[in-house]
Amino acid sequence: MEAMNENSTLYSAVTMNLDSTHSQVVPITLFVALLCVCLVIGHLLEEYPWLNESITAILIGFVVGTIILCTSKWKSSRLLRFSEELFFIYLLPPIIFNAGFQVKKKQFFHNFFPIMLFGVTGVLISTSIVAAGCWWLFPKLGFNGLTISEYLSIGTIFSSTDTVCTLQVLSQDETPLLYSLVFGEGVVNDATSVVLFNAVQKINADTLNSHTALRIFLDFLYLFTTSTLLGVSAGLVTAYILRGLYVGRHSSVREIALMVLVAYLSYMLAELFELSGILTVFFAGVLMSHYSWHNVTESSRITTRHSLINQIISKLRYAFATLSFIAETFIFLYVGMDALDYEKWKMSMLSIWTKMGIYSTVMMLILVGRVAFVFPLSIISNYMHRSGGDSTKISRKHQMVIWWAGLMRGAVSVALAFKQFTHSGVTLDPTNATMITTTIVIVLFSTIVFGFLTKPLVDHLLPSTSSNSNTTNTRGDPGSPKEDMTLPLLSVEESASENLSRAKDNLSMLMDRPVYTIHSYWRRFDTAYMRPIFGGPCSDENHSSSSC
Amino acid sequence: MEAMNENSTLYSAVTMNLDSTHSQVVPITLFVALLCVCLVIGHLLEEYPWLNESITAILIGFVVGTIILCTSKWKSSRLLRFSEELFFIYLLPPIIFNAGFQVKKKQFFHNFFPIMLFGVTGVLISTSIVAAGCWWLFPKLGFNGLTISEYLSIGTIFSSTDTVCTLQVLSQDETPLLYSLVFGEGVVNDATSVVLFNAVQKINADTLNSHTALRIFLDFLYLFTTSTLLGVSAGLVTAYILRGLYVGRHSSVREIALMVLVAYLSYMLAELFELSGILTVFFAGVLMSHYSWHNVTESSRITTRHSLINQIISKLRYAFATLSFIAETFIFLYVGMDALDYEKWKMSMLSIWTKMGIYSTVMMLILVGRVAFVFPLSIISNYMHRSGGDSTKISRKHQMVIWWAGLMRGAVSVALAFKQFTHSGVTLDPTNATMITTTIVIVLFSTIVFGFLTKPLVDHLLPSTSSNSNTTNTRGDPGSPKEDMTLPLLSVEESASENLSRAKDNLSMLMDRPVYTIHSYWRRFDTAYMRPIFGGPCSDENHSSSSC
Repeated sequence: MEAMNENSTLYSAVTMNLDSTHSQVVPITLFVALLCVCLVIGHLLEEYPWLNESITAILIGFVVGTIILCTSKWKSSRLLRFSEELFFIYLLPPIIFNAGFQVKKKQFFHNFFPIMLFGVTGVLISTSIVAAGCWWLFPKLGFNGLTISEYLSIGTIFSSTDTVCTLQVLSQDETPLLYSLVFGEGVVNDATSVVLFNAVQKINADTLNSHTALRIFLDFLYLFTTSTLLGVSAGLVTAYILRGLYVGRHSSVREIALMVLVAYLSYMLAELFELSGILTVFFAGVLMSHYSWHNVTESSRITTRHSLINQIISKLRYAFATLSFIAETFIFLYVGMDALDYEKWKMSMLSIWTKMGIYSTVMMLILVGRVAFVFPLSIISNYMHRSGGDSTKISRKHQMVIWWAGLMRGAVSVALAFKQFTHSGVTLDPTNATMITTTIVIVLFSTIVFGFLTKPLVDHLLPSTSSNSNTTNTRGDPGSPKEDMTLPLLSVEESASENLSRAKDNLSMLMDRPVYTIHSYWRRFDTAYMRPIFGGPCSDENHSSSSC
Repeated sequence: MEAMNENSTLYSAVTMNLDSTHSQVVPITLFVALLCVCLVIGHLLEEYPWLNESITAILIGFVVGTIILCTSKWKSSRLLRFSEELFFIYLLPPIIFNAGFQVKKKQFFHNFFPIMLFGVTGVLISTSIVAAGCWWLFPKLGFNGLTISEYLSIGTIFSSTDTVCTLQVLSQDETPLLYSLVFGEGVVNDATSVVLFNAVQKINADTLNSHTALRIFLDFLYLFTTSTLLGVSAGLVTAYILRGLYVGRHSSVREIALMVLVAYLSYMLAELFELSGILTVFFAGVLMSHYSWHNVTESSRITTRHSLINQIISKLRYAFATLSFIAETFIFLYVGMDALDYEKWKMSMLSIWTKMGIYSTVMMLILVGRVAFVFPLSIISNYMHRSGGDSTKISRKHQMVIWWAGLMRGAVSVALAFKQFTHSGVTLDPTNATMITTTIVIVLFSTIVFGFLTKPLVDHLLPSTSSNSNTTNTRGDPGSPKEDMTLPLLSVEESASENLSRAKDNLSMLMDRPVYTIHSYWRRFDTAYMRPIFGGPCSDENHSSSSC
């Protein structure tokens, strides 16, 4: 079996691995059953706002892990062995594609500057602080044996946030700017930490000097740029194919299939070339929802069922959202189960006090690392937007919420930790086992404890519903508070026509603001050159909305 | 690795198999790229109606197989090794769930009798003829070494049809009865042949007597009934949970996720208990679209966005259709590649003439096996519907089309053949290798040659568009030809309100027809007892459509 012919790469491991007849039916069945239980219990507990899906999944995983641990006589607490490939090849792409696809492009690009500031610069700052802090404090706690590049990896692992919990608590309508910042930072943060992790992986130096730091930064820039370009190309190619070949045809199923497959292909190509698939598929999602989506609609428009199919297709987003939701629940369920993995706990041969020291050090560094960039960067962002009025200013209370929102650690941290410190989910080295258990403890602690506290904290900081709506309205724009340029990024229900009317209202407003000048140039370029080639919704500048 | 602990079943093979780091990225990337190419070329060639997706995928697989064969120096023609587990665990469930979900329940149950006659009785007759024919003729051709139970398996393998090709050619509007019969038979046929295959697998007797035949029949009945009941229960449980727990809540994503997961869970449970997952997931799909779907809608209705969400959700069917479409294309692509597997051809040590004899024997038996049931069963169906007027009669020409539609062999045949004659995609025995190559030749030949001929044949048998619409109208019913009780089964665009108005028109008509009496009793039972418990659309008997 091992000594396969030279063609083994092509001969593939995927299906070979599905060989063990029926041995997989049992764990898959159990896992799917557990996912169902999570959904039902999660929904039953919806009345308790301090509980969320992540916490429920972790707790159920914990209970089931205990049962398995007992029935298997302390041998294992898991149904499935975690493989970071399972995560990176099957679970992550739909989550990120969905994020890119659902993002409200207009809002994302309006708040582009602060989002990038928090998402990219923030990760760089946080990684440096966590890595330096661990490098300085771990030996003092009596925990040695990590290399410089491992410290840097730890920095990136603990810089990737999980903002889902906070997003569930924030209201899109009441605090649109805050919501869009938290959501945007969450997406960019995921991508940045994975890219930075990959950049760090390439460093073999044992000493940290300015040259190494520069190389990491250049590698990061290279990965960031090429991955983005690959994703953008994938989106444009799909748009071009859909527009060029499919005009007047009517098989929406085939067109949707092509979009999904090209997005996945771009992800896999990025992984193949050792770029960041996460960034690639995110931008593929953004571009596809900007151009391709409307081409699918347009080709269907000719069959005279315009409004119906337009709705069908924009609502298909639910399908992507569902996939993404299942993948996320799966990961938290797994983390809950893995927390009880007896082997790993036994293997890390440190005293309970050293371990507690490590956990609290990392937790403290996460808190400090986030303080170190949220508040200074908010000041910079406010300075840049000084002419934008109150609505684009990040108030002190909002800064607190942004800081808190990024304290939770989730799926990406776990996946990166497994990639760094295990070989196919198995750890044999005590140091590595310690780092895996540390990651799991941090994820569990931050998700459960901080997760529980999020709702009370947000309620305390942003107390009254009405007062918030009022502050939104004080800007004196003519539309309702909903039709605000600082609208939340994520909206499943957003239709093309809403987009159009909102765009009209905002256009004149946009032109007055210096920060958005680039954006308005982009809009002109898009209308004049891009849309004629790649398609997309009729622009509000050239057409009246009735002609769309 | 092999000597894992006693807990190995739980310790799972799924993710263990995803270990071989990055070795799977290359084949997955290539396969996804090929799928994209298939879609684009398939769409480019849409002008040529005798070409369809299946043929395109097979031919592309063939070309790529040749290239791989050359570059790998005659060692392999495949990117992935076929495992019937890959097919039965990941690809088949979405295809069948989609079929169950999309089926127009009203039309399916109206034409229930002829569909079951063709789908169930037809498979039993065809299996007997093919099995007996092979058992009688193979030794005469000099091909020995098959057991009685293998002959029976061959019978079921070559009795599963692939009607996709014919459905692409038939028009739902022009020949609604014909379309619904071909589609319905296709779905029931898939399920029946898999169930019969499993029933045959349990037989170990070396002699065929009436007792064995009876046991197979009883096994078949048992599998058919229990699998159906499991699927129905899964559908009802989901409906009950959605209705009972979720009223007034608004997370459609979670509700959709629950539906998909329960459907998949029912499939896996059926496989675990050695029932037929295909039947289970089909009926789960039917029940879910009947009850749960409307519960998801109903709970969202309270949030006052009724019509919008109603449309969103009924249109999500596109997502299932897309999944199913990708899985089907994948399978044909694979079959095209596998056709060039040099090892298998070398291994079956028969002369070219014996092989040709085997292929033509099987092909001939398929033709005869279908003649033997389509025409007699049509006569029975016509006799039962003698009071139904011309529209429910299956004309001689329609019988020809039904016969032709079931001549193609596809994915299920390949999967069953791999299950019977290989061990995890590898054949070491010459007899088994011959049967695998025979299956592939039959699938290729029937899909390509018969597929090419389908369009001309249907055009010849059902020549003019207008004359067909006229025959539909001669029944003198007040509605348009579309609002016909013999409407096509499959409609992605069918909305609840259309359903309602059509149901009203048909209700009085139904009551006059003896065959539909059971159906009308069922409707009353459904309205009185089932819908109050499990939900579903408002009935046309108790409510006016405005109150829905």
